[in-house]
Amino acid sequence: MRTIFYISDGTALTAEAFGRAMLSMFPLKVEHKTLAFVDSVSKAEQAVTKINAAYAASGERPVIFHTFVSLDIKRVITASQGSCYDFLEDFVDPLSQELGIDAQPKTHRTHGIQENGVRDSYDSRIEAVNYALANDDGSNISDYDEADIIMLGVSRTGKTPVSLYLALQYGIKAANYPLTEDDNMENLQLPKSLKLQRHKLFGLTLEAQRLHEIRSKRREGSRYASLQQCRFELQEVEKMYRREAIPFLDSTRFSVEEIAAKILAETNLERHHY
Amino acid sequence: MRTIFYISDGTALTAEAFGRAMLSMFPLKVEHKTLAFVDSVSKAEQAVTKINAAYAASGERPVIFHTFVSLDIKRVITASQGSCYDFLEDFVDPLSQELGIDAQPKTHRTHGIQENGVRDSYDSRIEAVNYALANDDGSNISDYDEADIIMLGVSRTGKTPVSLYLALQYGIKAANYPLTEDDNMENLQLPKSLKLQRHKLFGLTLEAQRLHEIRSKRREGSRYASLQQCRFELQEVEKMYRREAIPFLDSTRFSVEEIAAKILAETNLERHHY
Repeated sequence: MRTIFYISDGTALTAEAFGRAMLSMFPLKVEHKTLAFVDSVSKAEQAVTKINAAYAASGERPVIFHTFVSLDIKRVITASQGSCYDFLEDFVDPLSQELGIDAQPKTHRTHGIQENGVRDSYDSRIEAVNYALANDDGSNISDYDEADIIMLGVSRTGKTPVSLYLALQYGIKAANYPLTEDDNMENLQLPKSLKLQRHKLFGLTLEAQRLHEIRSKRREGSRYASLQQCRFELQEVEKMYRREAIPFLDSTRFSVEEIAAKILAETNLERHHY
Repeated sequence: MRTIFYISDGTALTAEAFGRAMLSMFPLKVEHKTLAFVDSVSKAEQAVTKINAAYAASGERPVIFHTFVSLDIKRVITASQGSCYDFLEDFVDPLSQELGIDAQPKTHRTHGIQENGVRDSYDSRIEAVNYALANDDGSNISDYDEADIIMLGVSRTGKTPVSLYLALQYGIKAANYPLTEDDNMENLQLPKSLKLQRHKLFGLTLEAQRLHEIRSKRREGSRYASLQQCRFELQEVEKMYRREAIPFLDSTRFSVEEIAAKILAETNLERHHY
């Protein structure tokens, strides 16, 4: 199998993002390796040893996605036997001209919190995570005024991961409210506590078969996990979404990132962090 | 202020990642706008209207980071008055040659879970998030055998966001254990329940001033938030990390992403998801 290396003198987060996007274009099974903080020539030489060893072992040329601030270190990597891709190189100069300012590459700059104002944005994310945790599973209804969005759905439809992702990635305060038997599933009504927050509601749903699988991992053979019960709950909840004009999404075929992106596109929610 | 647009016929997550990385090279305050799911010519025309309006309003040419599968739609965007950057264009052909296979761009492919095996990786992340939540704040010591890593630290040093990030981004099962007065801060010892898991431990610490600020937001004027108490707790905990040879990190100047990257680099923890 071909090995893909993500290498940088910083966190390698940018190299990973770049490489992932590139590889998504190709249907290919690969092995991934991240080498972060390769910030000296001797560490770069060790990285080259690993690259060349991967080539020798598999017979397939490793693919290297790299972003280096230091040119000396970069040269060591590009002299390896790997096939190297550096996306910064091709784009920084044209963008610099457009912006009318020089690039000031700094290791760590991409994801750091040193800049003015970025501390605020960092704090907004931590605050949002704390908010999501405190408002997970309908546990803290009194705080809903503060919510940017309130996720609805029956048990195990992915409300919690999506809420946490919105918080961590975008600093969005996402509460979530599980619709359960306590809400009287037959002829499901919108819970009273949510009526005043209607403009913030967003529903999740799933295919019944998928929900059945997920719940079965948790409580195999239970009524809760049965296909029949899953089908019933999903039907009732979707009926309620439609009746109340709550926007909703079937998340069966989407990753957490995609669900978040779709919610943001549909609600025009403002990101507090980019 | 200059407006930056991230536009795609998919989630625009790749355009955002690409643009963020590019902009990190320039010290510049900008306004961000994501236009996702621009998947028809008429939607693209609406996007162009927004781009041109942003130009007219600010007098500064908007910068467009875009990734399109559809060439027809792309053409509409690149004919706008914005300065357009498409990082896929320059790299896909060379990589295709290297890999010996044709690119098969699919909307949604990057972050989707349609592919073989990717469902597993998706599940590993959701499982890891559930694990992190169940093992937050030392609440569930019995599950530590299952942990990939156990984060240690005094209250408010960022254990929870880091654990959740490791789970959501990489599918890593991260427990976290808060060191509190209950552990007898004076002459702090490694809690018994953690001794068998020593190889999984990773400590967080902060500058006392920063911890004082964070705790003050929570309980202003309390002993808990006092600079003296913060200093004392951090001293004791760092002494313990050193004595027990537990790797640790001062997270004061780093974002959640950076902390996670540093932990992964230092521990060689395997990512379950890329």
